[in-house]
Amino acid sequence: MVGTIILIRHGQSLWNKSNLFCGWVDIELSDKGKQQAIDSANLIKASGISPPDVCFTSRLTRAVQTANIVLEQLENQYIDVTKSWRLNERHYGKLQGLSKNAVLDEYGEEKYMYWRRAYNGCPPLVTPEDKYYCIDDKHRYQEALESELPRGESLKMVMDRLLPFYHETIVPELQKGKTVLIVSHGSVVRALAKFLYEIDEEAIAKINIPNGIPLVIKMTDELTPIGKEIEYLAPERAKIEAEKVARQGFEHK
Amino acid sequence: MVGTIILIRHGQSLWNKSNLFCGWVDIELSDKGKQQAIDSANLIKASGISPPDVCFTSRLTRAVQTANIVLEQLENQYIDVTKSWRLNERHYGKLQGLSKNAVLDEYGEEKYMYWRRAYNGCPPLVTPEDKYYCIDDKHRYQEALESELPRGESLKMVMDRLLPFYHETIVPELQKGKTVLIVSHGSVVRALAKFLYEIDEEAIAKINIPNGIPLVIKMTDELTPIGKEIEYLAPERAKIEAEKVARQGFEHK
Repeated sequence: MVGTIILIRHGQSLWNKSNLFCGWVDIELSDKGKQQAIDSANLIKASGISPPDVCFTSRLTRAVQTANIVLEQLENQYIDVTKSWRLNERHYGKLQGLSKNAVLDEYGEEKYMYWRRAYNGCPPLVTPEDKYYCIDDKHRYQEALESELPRGESLKMVMDRLLPFYHETIVPELQKGKTVLIVSHGSVVRALAKFLYEIDEEAIAKINIPNGIPLVIKMTDELTPIGKEIEYLAPERAKIEAEKVARQGFEHK
Repeated sequence: MVGTIILIRHGQSLWNKSNLFCGWVDIELSDKGKQQAIDSANLIKASGISPPDVCFTSRLTRAVQTANIVLEQLENQYIDVTKSWRLNERHYGKLQGLSKNAVLDEYGEEKYMYWRRAYNGCPPLVTPEDKYYCIDDKHRYQEALESELPRGESLKMVMDRLLPFYHETIVPELQKGKTVLIVSHGSVVRALAKFLYEIDEEAIAKINIPNGIPLVIKMTDELTPIGKEIEYLAPERAKIEAEKVARQGFEHK
């Protein structure tokens, strides 16, 4: 066995709560989201997994807040926390800021599900005139050129920008036998799970990731997961919450 | 002008409150300390200085907590935060965990002030049997060998381990014109101020650093401070609080 990945989708944000496409828009955690981060830490403690040695998160506040709360609760705030835009949520293009219900109603179920879940489903791209262009925030994205950053992404595009970071920065920690905490976003968790578990395009479209429930991936020497399936620390709750994510946009139907 | 340093001694810890030598013992912020961190951020906001581009802090929870609160309040949680034992408080050797009053009473004023403030004043060194040895915490100090870490330090010894980090890691950011936030500890602030302002050994012994009041150091192209003296963002309050730090241990006299 090499190292262990603990993977968490950030706690509920204010826009998760009001059911808007969020993407790269920087929205904070709701009170429920903060509580989910505390609960995540308690699940990690109770699991007996050795505590995180390093932490990776995105440049978006809801993920950083979640990581900080988890580490505070674990009394591990002193470990290194590395941030990268490559762990950001999928850029949702022109859908950012729109209500999921409204997009479903306007474009219909097929298009809506294509944008949300198809592996190659890329939403319409933003231009600098759009309110939620986001990639011109030079203070936040000091490490990247605006031209490198996405204006809208499919899950495949997320995978393509995530994997170089995974191989260059996360894998070396796993090879040292470390416990690596990754606090990120729904699409990044899906992309990494697709890669590690070799989930096909059809199957990944049906996988939904709940907020704030840790997934644990113990790795072999070959850097493949020991188990064959995603394992949550609270599997029953994860199933119920994932089902709610799948239903987003359809609540009024 | 090159970059700007914003330097903060962490907010009040529970042991600052109860007047114990703390050093490398990992003690959390008091409620007052958390409020001081919020106040620090508000002073930075009101100062008109451009917000921090990068942050450096120690491996001790009270500094990390302060940094996280300041960045949260500034809505800058997405910037890089780099931690190092080289920004830790002075290791106070066998004095760690002892009350300042009791040490003053037992050893007398001359020895007490020598240990606390003399440039070469090194307290008795810890051994592994001591309750607060601290340097065998391999999870916290993954980046260093136990043999590299101090068992007790004078201010000079702090300077010697701080400056390599300053030159290698902080200076390149200043040369890029960045605003660098350093959240650290009393002795580290004193050591860095002594170096940058070329304060002599006698004068540095009289300088006391209050908790949670930002110091601002704007730098020239030659990487020297533009001003000739330490400048706090709340100079009147800093003066009053520094005087209280100077009086620690003597309150009952």
